[in-house]
Amino acid sequence: MTPIDLNADLGEGFGRWRLTDDERLLSVVTSANVACGFHAGDAATMRRVCELAAERGVTIGAQVSYRDLAGFGRRAMDVPPAELAAEVAYQIGALEVFARAAGARVAYVKPHGALYNRVVHDEEQARAVVDGVLLVDDSLPVLGLPGSRLLELAAKAGLPDVPEAFADRAYTDQGTLVPRAREGAVLTDPETVVERSVGLARSGTVVADSGARIGVRARSLCLHGDTPGAVELAGRVRRRLEAAGVRVESFA
Amino acid sequence: MTPIDLNADLGEGFGRWRLTDDERLLSVVTSANVACGFHAGDAATMRRVCELAAERGVTIGAQVSYRDLAGFGRRAMDVPPAELAAEVAYQIGALEVFARAAGARVAYVKPHGALYNRVVHDEEQARAVVDGVLLVDDSLPVLGLPGSRLLELAAKAGLPDVPEAFADRAYTDQGTLVPRAREGAVLTDPETVVERSVGLARSGTVVADSGARIGVRARSLCLHGDTPGAVELAGRVRRRLEAAGVRVESFA
Amino acid sequence: MTPIDLNADLGEGFGRWRLTDDERLLSVVTSANVACGFHAGDAATMRRVCELAAERGVTIGAQVSYRDLAGFGRRAMDVPPAELAAEVAYQIGALEVFARAAGARVAYVKPHGALYNRVVHDEEQARAVVDGVLLVDDSLPVLGLPGSRLLELAAKAGLPDVPEAFADRAYTDQGTLVPRAREGAVLTDPETVVERSVGLARSGTVVADSGARIGVRARSLCLHGDTPGAVELAGRVRRRLEAAGVRVESFA
Amino acid sequence: MTPIDLNADLGEGFGRWRLTDDERLLSVVTSANVACGFHAGDAATMRRVCELAAERGVTIGAQVSYRDLAGFGRRAMDVPPAELAAEVAYQIGALEVFARAAGARVAYVKPHGALYNRVVHDEEQARAVVDGVLLVDDSLPVLGLPGSRLLELAAKAGLPDVPEAFADRAYTDQGTLVPRAREGAVLTDPETVVERSVGLARSGTVVADSGARIGVRARSLCLHGDTPGAVELAGRVRRRLEAAGVRVESFA
Repeated sequence: MTPIDLNADLGEGFGRWRLTDDERLLSVVTSANVACGFHAGDAATMRRVCELAAERGVTIGAQVSYRDLAGFGRRAMDVPPAELAAEVAYQIGALEVFARAAGARVAYVKPHGALYNRVVHDEEQARAVVDGVLLVDDSLPVLGLPGSRLLELAAKAGLPDVPEAFADRAYTDQGTLVPRAREGAVLTDPETVVERSVGLARSGTVVADSGARIGVRARSLCLHGDTPGAVELAGRVRRRLEAAGVRVESFA
Repeated sequence: MTPIDLNADLGEGFGRWRLTDDERLLSVVTSANVACGFHAGDAATMRRVCELAAERGVTIGAQVSYRDLAGFGRRAMDVPPAELAAEVAYQIGALEVFARAAGARVAYVKPHGALYNRVVHDEEQARAVVDGVLLVDDSLPVLGLPGSRLLELAAKAGLPDVPEAFADRAYTDQGTLVPRAREGAVLTDPETVVERSVGLARSGTVVADSGARIGVRARSLCLHGDTPGAVELAGRVRRRLEAAGVRVESFA
Repeated sequence: MTPIDLNADLGEGFGRWRLTDDERLLSVVTSANVACGFHAGDAATMRRVCELAAERGVTIGAQVSYRDLAGFGRRAMDVPPAELAAEVAYQIGALEVFARAAGARVAYVKPHGALYNRVVHDEEQARAVVDGVLLVDDSLPVLGLPGSRLLELAAKAGLPDVPEAFADRAYTDQGTLVPRAREGAVLTDPETVVERSVGLARSGTVVADSGARIGVRARSLCLHGDTPGAVELAGRVRRRLEAAGVRVESFA
Repeated sequence: MTPIDLNADLGEGFGRWRLTDDERLLSVVTSANVACGFHAGDAATMRRVCELAAERGVTIGAQVSYRDLAGFGRRAMDVPPAELAAEVAYQIGALEVFARAAGARVAYVKPHGALYNRVVHDEEQARAVVDGVLLVDDSLPVLGLPGSRLLELAAKAGLPDVPEAFADRAYTDQGTLVPRAREGAVLTDPETVVERSVGLARSGTVVADSGARIGVRARSLCLHGDTPGAVELAGRVRRRLEAAGVRVESFA
């Protein structure tokens, strides 16, 4: 059985503001998507999160975003590809300094928010993100949605593509996520989320909203940490995965 | 005779705005202080300037600043040292990506504007800048004012300290700069600037505002490039240095 | 014959950066679209432009934009309507202070860049802009493209809708602008631009790219001022309009 | 007995981030210092806070700050006076739109954070703040520390000056605040804070850190609301003031 990685967004405060419970999350996840200053994440926070992650052996990834503090990177933007590629590289480079200072490395890249959603289908922006990663390192893994343009173009460019799944999101029969706006798109019952996590990790399958069991390719599960309940649920997912004999381990 | 380096600020636009004539300056200077996004310098501009500099064999330096786009980094800020150190490291790391992608490296660090002036005397901020540099690389040269707290602390920390002089600024008998606000602080006659450049490079001396000739330790001369006249003057300085038998060469 | 207004973007610098030649433009136009800080326009510049405009009797308008200094407001953004409405109101309010201090008023609103283009067709964002204007003043004119969703919704809401035309842009037979990306979309021959200005002002017609003469409803002509040539052309347009007996006069 | 006003900072989130419990605070205070976007406070939040404040009859004030989101306005900045005055006016104008839309008005101005502290002694910046207020309205009250340069210059300029006191801060015999860095500078025992509030409101006196009872001129008490405990304490202060026969009432 392939091991499963658990990833979550970290360091998503900015200056005076805090959002994610970084300390507690780092005792659960195996990969930390660290905000790099464009949607969240001041330099001092980036440094601290890298230090904590390195101490605990958690893999560090660059969570790259549109430049949009006011919108937390959740508003799609028509950024010209050359700008976007450069902005992606800029963010990775900034984080790399703190990862290295902590004795680690930026080991993967994951787009955040609206950029994450956009590069599922947008060829031009997906290519720009890949170009930005290539500027930095031509062997850096890219974490994203299986079947997305991003992962396809990353793989073509020789970058390891790492597919992830969401245990708390409804899936269509085609294996795509049910849009958040639709009723039932987000699953909130903890036990359901835990069971789906185990199914995704053990057999690579999940029950779609039609009731059919479908295959979902996933080397990582995306967990959340911006509410107290979310962190506890994340811990429960990890314990149940381990109890079910799943090896919880970073892909990097 | 020690060779002399010529440095100038580059890439000081932001998005739609341009300021420095980067192309022309790169044919004059041997070291480019590249803006890193905090007072100026969007990611695409940083990339382009690094490519141009690398092509022409110009050394790339990180021109680090307070986070202050609205004030162009010219307003002193009481940034707590831990934040300042992290912000310095962040900027160097972001630039490093573009330097490496162009086949070069960030070869030195120079503070910009109000931060440059502050670390002449401010022990705490000078130490924070040094700490930021050390986070990235414990052998990275620091360019600044001779006698400044910054250069003293850099040297103590084992970082190569590179003193620079200003051929277009009046000096006191003590070898400090006459404050800009005072009459005659900035010299505008091109021939005077050129002659002072040659004197600084050949004999390490300059005529102070008292009329006395004083020694000024300088491995680099700071030129300006934000007006058309400035770029021409920079070119004239370089030609006259070479005609006087001075080797114009980066310190890095 | 209806008088014609001449409008142009002003105050589009930010801090150290300058773009528009505000002084000279203010001697040509009758309406100044003043940048309000979201794509350009620091507070001190806004104040100065308002003072100059008021002195010369030029009408002051709020040039509202997406919050995007790095992209100069030229990148479309999916801003939720409630945020967009509030941001529009925020910008108008900020400018109003300087207009009033100069003895004038914000007399109209014009969206900038990507927002301008978006609200031609985007119902939701057009409505958000109108809502933002209504928050401030339910009788404030809105300047935009004739036939745009923005002007339609403004009119429905009881706001005076002011259509504008572009003498330097090619038009389709349907009276819409030929997209910038297409060859010949932007006209650069000064005499052509001047003649089209006179045609638009005198008869409300222009030659479309098919060669057919079409009607274009316009109470204002949009001029440009971000290059020296542009300001001269603007002056020439104004002189020729006046020579042709057109009354050049603000709509407000 | 003079009535006492209770003021607190509100709307100090930004985009995705929240800080102050605005709803609950608005049931306690009589004056709301609303963040205006420079240290915190996005436009949609400003609008919502103004609506809530107006509904409950709470007076709206503009909490103006240095432009410093990354530092939450807590880092002193050497902003040239003309820029600072314009930035103060900009913020007041932006807030005024939302206050008016809610059927209210911006009824006073209070500087935030590092600017608040700076204008206690800094003549130039204090004057700039006053100039900024005067640009908007020459009768707008200014809330600040008694004896500060800000209140002195405001009074000289004809602006109503409103002195405030802090029930949770230690005072010197001279009536100035004990610097935060010093031990015992901030009082945390709720009952002590409540008692000092009553003393300040009823007799205009407080026990200084020497043990002596001193006079402190205060028309308003500054409460805090960025922690759950703080909001409860604020409520307790209000109830005890009312129980002690103090009229709790805005100064505006």
